[in-house]
Amino acid sequence: MIGKLNHVAIAVPDLEKAANTYRETLGAKVSAPHPVPAHGVTVVFVELPNTKIELLHPLGDKSPIAGFLEKNAGGGIHHICFEVEDVVAAGETLKAAGARVLGDGAPKIGAHGNPVLFLHPKDFFGTLVEIEQVPAA
Amino acid sequence: MIGKLNHVAIAVPDLEKAANTYRETLGAKVSAPHPVPAHGVTVVFVELPNTKIELLHPLGDKSPIAGFLEKNAGGGIHHICFEVEDVVAAGETLKAAGARVLGDGAPKIGAHGNPVLFLHPKDFFGTLVEIEQVPAA
Repeated sequence: MIGKLNHVAIAVPDLEKAANTYRETLGAKVSAPHPVPAHGVTVVFVELPNTKIELLHPLGDKSPIAGFLEKNAGGGIHHICFEVEDVVAAGETLKAAGARVLGDGAPKIGAHGNPVLFLHPKDFFGTLVEIEQVPAA
Repeated sequence: MIGKLNHVAIAVPDLEKAANTYRETLGAKVSAPHPVPAHGVTVVFVELPNTKIELLHPLGDKSPIAGFLEKNAGGGIHHICFEVEDVVAAGETLKAAGARVLGDGAPKIGAHGNPVLFLHPKDFFGTLVEIEQVPAA
């Protein structure tokens, strides 16, 4: 079912500093910050040859990553995202297998404009898993 | 400097259960368990089209992931690994930029037979970073 690893998302307390570290210390290609108000985050994309790292910082009062940064003040890996062809079908298959889909179970439009679902980390060994519907290339 | 994301490593308390979840629930291609005594882990490789997930479980008395699983009993993402062309040169560049290389600073042979270094998570926003020398394809 799952296809490519679309991205690894890392929550960081200082987005400019993290972007500079990835750009200057690690020598990666790093985007400008993209505010995504609907998701309560500002994102910097680190483009690698085969996938992306997304550096996330809270945006607004109800950011879903604010609590994570309270518990992990220095930052940390927040989630990983796998691509699927059909996120509704994938969600049904996962639920039938006993995995919990977060929220109301309906896909939301993610930061890349594609429908996404998040799966409960307790069902995936402490890893918050996002699945994103990405049309076949 | 950094190239591809070589893998995301996830420490898990039950390797067989985690392998089954990735194989059956997520429908991924999953290897048999590979014991790597020199690194104190048994590894299951989850092969994605663009990178790998490595499921890690402690092996032996001095496993470097035993402490992590004591703190995160349900499991969790342990590290991410970026490919570099020359791990010694990369280590020198990183040290010059103020990043801390773990251990004695000399590369060790990693689970794939290539020289690797680990970088201090506090210098990378709570993310333990491995760099692995992978010859250009």
